[in-house]
Amino acid sequence: MAKVSILGAGAWGTAIAILLGNNGHEVTLWSALPAEVELLKNDRELKDKLPGVKLPDSVIISDDLESSCKDKDLIVFAVASPYVRKTAKMARPFIRENQIVVNVGKGIEESTLDTLTDILKEELNNADVAVMSGPSHAEEVSRGIPTTCVVGADSKATAYFIQDVFMSERFRVYTSPDVIGIELGGSIKNVIALAAGVADGLGFGDNTKAALMTRGIAEISRLGIAMGGKIETFAGLSGVGDLFVTCTSKHSRNRNAGYLIGKGYTMDEAMAEVKQVVEGVYSAKAALALAKKYNVEMPIVEQINLVLFENKSAEEAVADLLLRDKRREYSELKWNK
Amino acid sequence: MAKVSILGAGAWGTAIAILLGNNGHEVTLWSALPAEVELLKNDRELKDKLPGVKLPDSVIISDDLESSCKDKDLIVFAVASPYVRKTAKMARPFIRENQIVVNVGKGIEESTLDTLTDILKEELNNADVAVMSGPSHAEEVSRGIPTTCVVGADSKATAYFIQDVFMSERFRVYTSPDVIGIELGGSIKNVIALAAGVADGLGFGDNTKAALMTRGIAEISRLGIAMGGKIETFAGLSGVGDLFVTCTSKHSRNRNAGYLIGKGYTMDEAMAEVKQVVEGVYSAKAALALAKKYNVEMPIVEQINLVLFENKSAEEAVADLLLRDKRREYSELKWNK
Repeated sequence: MAKVSILGAGAWGTAIAILLGNNGHEVTLWSALPAEVELLKNDRELKDKLPGVKLPDSVIISDDLESSCKDKDLIVFAVASPYVRKTAKMARPFIRENQIVVNVGKGIEESTLDTLTDILKEELNNADVAVMSGPSHAEEVSRGIPTTCVVGADSKATAYFIQDVFMSERFRVYTSPDVIGIELGGSIKNVIALAAGVADGLGFGDNTKAALMTRGIAEISRLGIAMGGKIETFAGLSGVGDLFVTCTSKHSRNRNAGYLIGKGYTMDEAMAEVKQVVEGVYSAKAALALAKKYNVEMPIVEQINLVLFENKSAEEAVADLLLRDKRREYSELKWNK
Repeated sequence: MAKVSILGAGAWGTAIAILLGNNGHEVTLWSALPAEVELLKNDRELKDKLPGVKLPDSVIISDDLESSCKDKDLIVFAVASPYVRKTAKMARPFIRENQIVVNVGKGIEESTLDTLTDILKEELNNADVAVMSGPSHAEEVSRGIPTTCVVGADSKATAYFIQDVFMSERFRVYTSPDVIGIELGGSIKNVIALAAGVADGLGFGDNTKAALMTRGIAEISRLGIAMGGKIETFAGLSGVGDLFVTCTSKHSRNRNAGYLIGKGYTMDEAMAEVKQVVEGVYSAKAALALAKKYNVEMPIVEQINLVLFENKSAEEAVADLLLRDKRREYSELKWNK
């Protein structure tokens, strides 16, 4: 039995509260928004995003950050990426030294190119910050559909502790030392999902989409390895695994926005039609900036940026990708002769 | 301009004849079946499998193996796996020393556990045998839908030559030295597609399917690395790329057979319903035998074998996979502390 707080009561934070509550832990679910707290307290359910799934009775709903952060074995950051730094600053006074914190959000801060874990490490300077990611639609996790994730941490003890807290008969957790690799896969995959959507919108086939996804992961790997990540991670749950669900789901905003762009919409028209934040549009800029910073080739990311921000046509972008110079699949591998 | 023969006039062989004919090569398409040759000569089209796509006028259809093999720059083996050894034995007298041959078929020979490239190397003992694989539905390649593949060869010169022959504005070819890695991915992915189908049939979600696909690739990587392959390859076009198209396509016999098994059919009932050879059923046995031979853990392959051949229920198999001991995602990665 652990004392756990979850900061952020969106779909993912709430699904995790349900999972951990059912695992028998003492769970507090915190939100900065009093209206959200009120609704959750009354309904015991996140009606708009996870309809029909009740929070276990034991889960405490709170808008008090101090009590939510004090005296906990684990703090889960489930905050949307633009609010992570602000929330961390607010929480800082209440977080004790060596507090175990796990980030379950995704994104790169545009102004600094920091990952969310970087931000948490910076703002909560003595905390032990880990990350959890993988193919995990909140809707499915909340309903107990078999799901797998991977926890990355600097120390084995921390990774194993978080694994123990989350693991259940329906939620299988793997561990890994590759924190940066896990963070990057989740954050940049939305750019590739956008590209896969563009291919769908252009009327191309499964071959084309699989090509974009696979070469997309190759680009993310190149960047990730330059930043200290491991290739195994990009072939794993937080890499290709997460990309599988994002590119194939009809619910993915990124894929849908890409689809419209492939049909000839401009980025602004597509965003207006999808009516929600399209994370991949922001990640596309951040990924391009990281590619430049680390001097890594990311042709799909480059072309998506040209389509999004320079009015390049989607057809032309695909043609340019196909007509690039001939390449080896992974240039690190050596020929026998 | 190269002189190329394609042995095998199924969907994939014919699609390649269309591609290479359109690339301007001198192409011969050979089939062992006189009726198939007659039909192709009359229709200039593979009406049942690639309807509406004509062979370029320049492509020669032949049932004469000797003239098809002599004086060629490249011989493409596009033969269904059970017929590869027999066809190679027949072709052997007509194949000159150092003949470049590329296998585009998939499968493991059950009795020997040889890959198709192994068989070709054995039977055509002085040929220079390469492999090409990737996410490439024949229907889409024949219609010029953007597609990518990877060519594996022992020598850089051979790989680059084959890349030059195949590459077009709509067919992008990468090269790699990892022949065994490329062969294995394509051959064993059907077992994982079966497992993904089972999860669909059980009514599980996208999370579960992504988990099976990702952990499936992790198993194939472990085996492939034990056999001399490279992890990059399993993260590439012939690994996850091919798995993407196989697991998501409604046309995949393997996925469909798995779906029925998930719904409660026995293997025999599912095979009868799907009415075609389900390659994954044979690959499942071969994969298990290889796992034993190389002493590699392949829990998904093991459970699929139990479901297929030992009447284990699909629910139980999934439960057993989820409840295995806690693991690291890739046990080779080292902890920082």
